[in-house]
Amino acid sequence: MSDLERLVQDIAGIAIEDNPQIVKQKSRDFFWYSPVLKQQLDHVTGDLVVTPRNEAEVIQVLRACYAHDVPVTARGAGTGNYGQAMPLSGGVVLNLAEMRAVKQIRPGVVVAEAGAILSDIDEKAGAQSGQELRMHPSTYRTATIGGFVAGGSGGIGSINWGGLRDLGNVIRLRVVTMEAEPKVLDLQGEDLQKVLHAYGTNGVITEVEMPLTASYDWVDVIVGFKTFMDSVHFADDLGNRDGLLLKEIAPIAAPLPHDYFLRHQKFLRRETSVVVCMVAPFAMDAFTAFVARNPRAELLYRSDTATDAEKKGLPPAYELTWNHTTLRGLRVDPSITYLQVLYPFPNQVERVRKITELLGDEVPGHLEYVRFDGKVTCFGLPVVRYTNEERLNEIIKLHEDNGCPIFNPHRYTLEEGGMKQTDQVQLDFKRKADPKGLLNPGKMIAWEDPSYDFSSDKLFLFPGLQRGES
Amino acid sequence: MSDLERLVQDIAGIAIEDNPQIVKQKSRDFFWYSPVLKQQLDHVTGDLVVTPRNEAEVIQVLRACYAHDVPVTARGAGTGNYGQAMPLSGGVVLNLAEMRAVKQIRPGVVVAEAGAILSDIDEKAGAQSGQELRMHPSTYRTATIGGFVAGGSGGIGSINWGGLRDLGNVIRLRVVTMEAEPKVLDLQGEDLQKVLHAYGTNGVITEVEMPLTASYDWVDVIVGFKTFMDSVHFADDLGNRDGLLLKEIAPIAAPLPHDYFLRHQKFLRRETSVVVCMVAPFAMDAFTAFVARNPRAELLYRSDTATDAEKKGLPPAYELTWNHTTLRGLRVDPSITYLQVLYPFPNQVERVRKITELLGDEVPGHLEYVRFDGKVTCFGLPVVRYTNEERLNEIIKLHEDNGCPIFNPHRYTLEEGGMKQTDQVQLDFKRKADPKGLLNPGKMIAWEDPSYDFSSDKLFLFPGLQRGES
Ligand SMILES: Cc1cc2nc3c(=O)[nH]c(=O)nc-3n(C[C@H](O)[C@H](O)[C@H](O)COP(=O)(O)OP(=O)(O)OC[C@H]3O[C@@H](n4cnc5c(N)ncnc54)[C@H](O)[C@@H]3O)c2cc1C
Ligand SMILES: Cc1cc2nc3c(=O)[nH]c(=O)nc-3n(C[C@H](O)[C@H](O)[C@H](O)COP(=O)(O)OP(=O)(O)OC[C@H]3O[C@@H](n4cnc5c(N)ncnc54)[C@H](O)[C@@H]3O)c2cc1C
Repeated sequence: MSDLERLVQDIAGIAIEDNPQIVKQKSRDFFWYSPVLKQQLDHVTGDLVVTPRNEAEVIQVLRACYAHDVPVTARGAGTGNYGQAMPLSGGVVLNLAEMRAVKQIRPGVVVAEAGAILSDIDEKAGAQSGQELRMHPSTYRTATIGGFVAGGSGGIGSINWGGLRDLGNVIRLRVVTMEAEPKVLDLQGEDLQKVLHAYGTNGVITEVEMPLTASYDWVDVIVGFKTFMDSVHFADDLGNRDGLLLKEIAPIAAPLPHDYFLRHQKFLRRETSVVVCMVAPFAMDAFTAFVARNPRAELLYRSDTATDAEKKGLPPAYELTWNHTTLRGLRVDPSITYLQVLYPFPNQVERVRKITELLGDEVPGHLEYVRFDGKVTCFGLPVVRYTNEERLNEIIKLHEDNGCPIFNPHRYTLEEGGMKQTDQVQLDFKRKADPKGLLNPGKMIAWEDPSYDFSSDKLFLFPGLQRGES
Repeated sequence: MSDLERLVQDIAGIAIEDNPQIVKQKSRDFFWYSPVLKQQLDHVTGDLVVTPRNEAEVIQVLRACYAHDVPVTARGAGTGNYGQAMPLSGGVVLNLAEMRAVKQIRPGVVVAEAGAILSDIDEKAGAQSGQELRMHPSTYRTATIGGFVAGGSGGIGSINWGGLRDLGNVIRLRVVTMEAEPKVLDLQGEDLQKVLHAYGTNGVITEVEMPLTASYDWVDVIVGFKTFMDSVHFADDLGNRDGLLLKEIAPIAAPLPHDYFLRHQKFLRRETSVVVCMVAPFAMDAFTAFVARNPRAELLYRSDTATDAEKKGLPPAYELTWNHTTLRGLRVDPSITYLQVLYPFPNQVERVRKITELLGDEVPGHLEYVRFDGKVTCFGLPVVRYTNEERLNEIIKLHEDNGCPIFNPHRYTLEEGGMKQTDQVQLDFKRKADPKGLLNPGKMIAWEDPSYDFSSDKLFLFPGLQRGES
């Protein structure tokens, strides 16, 4: 009997899928966003999809996988876009999508199972208490809270609350370890850093406690400008208006809005750059006063006064932003790709100007305003009109040489996509929580190759990935 | 028949008080905070206190006062501390305290009559909808919303929302003008600037529409430090933690906390500087993790784990902050006074250090962290161990010479206490709304003396003030 067969025996009674087509489908995420990852990971598949219904079943699966040395890669909705949820060494895809109960809502707090969909949480919190999550990715209507916490970084709402890993943006995580006898740990305060944004490499999250904030019927707004830099200046100023409550501020360069936002096209001209906003309804008077102060700004669309006919078929504004901008672009023009850039405060506007001047329409700008260490600045998710990997690397270098760090979305490891250094806290926790290294293999370089040189320009190639190619 | 007698006839049926003792008492505010104002304004009194029950009565009073050339000075709770609400030329003190209905609460919005007490609004908003005002002065339990909007500038909550005059922090003001036939105007958006913080010199506010935010059972916390600068560094860092929800961050130098906070004395040592905080309950884990990162910080008090015995008799933390620090000081040592300082971003910490070094215990530090144009920085309300006016002016100059603008709390005019320049918008509006100049005379220099030189070091002496001395 093979390891896998023994595993299947051990977890009898828990839902298992072994149809290769379905397993392969459930082993993929949005890795194909990146032409680089598309090539590297296209063949990857797990062996089994296992779908626990509760924490006891998660424990049972991890115990059995540990016993039989079977890798386990946790999966929420599989909307990650760096191959985070892809089982590089095969084994079990642990599908948490059926663990989706919203267990408790109280002032400022929600407790949910890891597989709960973000928009479901908000629907319940809103209906019961006028509250919502502080921030969510643009994949709000599909992504799970566990996947967001393990694989995401921020999104709509980050203009007010910063990034997901900032102290206070997660209250508690309940985590199951990968040991002979799995432990269940409730991590809070400083301990959260052990597993936040660790791609599930050092524990499986079963329950999440998150802060809530007041929910509103956010008004979708699009403001138009003749130049991209006009839109950037507007956004930068807007983000610093303390009394104006917004949830999203995204400048996007022409011609992207017109070319990619097909359902909004009727409101857009090809030469118009825009700022996509979500504004609190009671702030709309102040917001329009702010727009009126700027002779270059033109209000193109606001959902609160749009007719039903105008609104028909429009996606919500947040599905024009963050990586949905890229997604809409890929649908229109599959040859594009994108980057992730930080424009550090206080020189964000000047750096955007410089990069825009250097790269023009080869890299049309898309910024996301956020709070970062207390200051309002912007991330970039610029579209890249892709030619080849060499030129992509040149473009990356050009950003870095101009003081704009890149979080490379064309890498599947934690380090290469992030801070390009070992996260000692996460590594130490992995040593305890996953001594056999079976959780999401290949994603933490510090574990796979302790001597790896992060300052080299080389790409990390996970040896375990070979197996997938068989 | 005198003008006043004719006025009384015209407003028959409206509550009038003319007992000189009571009128004098209702003509005073906290002007005596300032030894300078104490001397200048001690004799000031109105002639009548008129107490309307509704807007129609306000209109009736203003119409009659206009007809008989009687000055009108609006009054909320009289907690202003620059003599704002004092009728320098006598006449009617228009007491709005009986107009205190909370008329509407909906998501993000409250509508209240101008005389509603701030904490009453929050009690109702909290009970009905889990909401509260974004910010309030430390006189929360006594001050009116109309007085706050007309005379205040910010306070507890400004760390999140900036100042009261910032776009979006007031939604709508309903204002009655002082004309032969008074008009009722609803001001919104840009128009709010006409009357916000105008001391009631160009209209009487009858109704206020304010934004609300989520309310929580804020946890009062005191963190102790060996030096004032340690407390400042901690506060500065804390204010920039995007995911940590606090409502108040106030560093206060030793020995003030121990010497002035008598009921909290049991938690304080004389040589300990503190940071007084209000923390969202669900953020306490993250907050204590943050404190633990700082080896110089010591948690001295937290209300969420304090015993009933410990909490007995303690005022809420916000009554240790803003001008309540000064009030508590004055109770212990009537010889002190204070200043109001802005430490501009990004050099706030360095400037505090410099001033502290220069002035030491003659001017013990008290800072209030706030958002200001999107950045976290601090205001100062330092205590001044007062000797004479000359030295006070030297201390003011020393601040200004070190890049720290003073908002002089020892002046009763809008301009001298504020930006030291004409507010053209407010002046233009006064021309229309109060053509005879009867509203709160003497408070707007630009009206009283259009040729006044704001760059001179001289004090403005309102000629109309003479009358009060008769
Ligand atoms: C169009 C588009 C837009 C996006 N916009 C954003 C954005 O605005 N902000 C942002 O941060 N991200 C964004 N992303 C990335 C991704 O959608 C989000 O991070 C999302 O929250 C991931 O949730 P998921 O349920 O799909 O997680 P998955 O993709 O299933 O998993 C993500 C990672 O978490 C791990 N994981 C999942 N569940 C668990 C668990 N219970 N325990 C331990 N590990 C677990 C997986 O192994 C994987 O490494 C976007 C992606 C796309 C395709
Ligand atoms: C101990 C102490 C602490 C304080 N802390 C703060 C603080 O943290 N932040 C802050 O901003 N202030 C503070 N203040 C100042 C003051 O308490 C507040 O500004 C308060 O909001 C004033 O409200 P009030 O009802 O007492 O107004 P009043 O003092 O009655 O009036 C203030 C001004 O507004 C005018 N006014 C009042 N009502 C109306 C109306 N309906 N229409 C037109 N004009 C009107 C008056 O003429 C006067 O000019 C403090 C004062 C003290 C004594």
